[in-house]
Amino acid sequence: MATEEDFQVETLQFKKLLLAVDDDDDESSHRAFNYACTLAKTYDIPLGIVSVLETGDLNIYQSLSPDIVSDRRSQIAAHLNTYVTKAEAFGVKDVEPIIGEGKPAHVILEEVVPSFKPDVIILGNHHQRHLGSVAAEVTREARDSVIVIR
Amino acid sequence: MATEEDFQVETLQFKKLLLAVDDDDDESSHRAFNYACTLAKTYDIPLGIVSVLETGDLNIYQSLSPDIVSDRRSQIAAHLNTYVTKAEAFGVKDVEPIIGEGKPAHVILEEVVPSFKPDVIILGNHHQRHLGSVAAEVTREARDSVIVIR
Repeated sequence: MATEEDFQVETLQFKKLLLAVDDDDDESSHRAFNYACTLAKTYDIPLGIVSVLETGDLNIYQSLSPDIVSDRRSQIAAHLNTYVTKAEAFGVKDVEPIIGEGKPAHVILEEVVPSFKPDVIILGNHHQRHLGSVAAEVTREARDSVIVIR
Repeated sequence: MATEEDFQVETLQFKKLLLAVDDDDDESSHRAFNYACTLAKTYDIPLGIVSVLETGDLNIYQSLSPDIVSDRRSQIAAHLNTYVTKAEAFGVKDVEPIIGEGKPAHVILEEVVPSFKPDVIILGNHHQRHLGSVAAEVTREARDSVIVIR
């Protein structure tokens, strides 16, 4: 315990936020969105909002139907646009919608994060108490800081 | 996906922070401390800093020796005081050191949180990539928001 004597406190602020959302708009999703917008506006930093089309969610018949996949993609795009519009109206200047496709945690960690390069990932907790599986995996595996909003 | 249309963005700020630290001062601990101090100073909110004497860490001979437990308690108190002094010097007005004893995640969730009543818990991630076991358990089980700093 010698080192901390020399340690100086320094202001730490995030520089680029990634908010992960899904279709299940619940209280924690809204709170996570509120917190992401608050941080992005306060510190005037970019906010990416990612939603992943869970292809594993669709059954075999559905996943073979281009129409259904296309419909889901349109729904997600509309959903993201709603978030972007609201964030911009709130005062966030730089908002980027990002659509992924596949297994959410994998897509977020292996595709979106390396490309968008956030230094923090913000997620809602989609369960009353226990951590949702996507939030748990992202929290466990991310190389960046993670904020789980309840 | 109808509800989110009516949803209005609201500023979300935390009101009371709990930072969990341990003796393993590494880069993520320092960053977590920096972030906790930055938030507490920026928003002028109380900061609790908890460190838990892991009684499970001591072997049977040691745990029977009051001297060794007492020494460890003194070390932890000194460690916490260092943090408190640095936080105050940085400009955090309301800093409270909290010492627990037992299994860290359990003590934090079942004793410290119900008593201190934070709305967010901040922890460092004590591993290069994978989430430390205390951070993982707190993140999974907490009823409040959790920030894992890497």
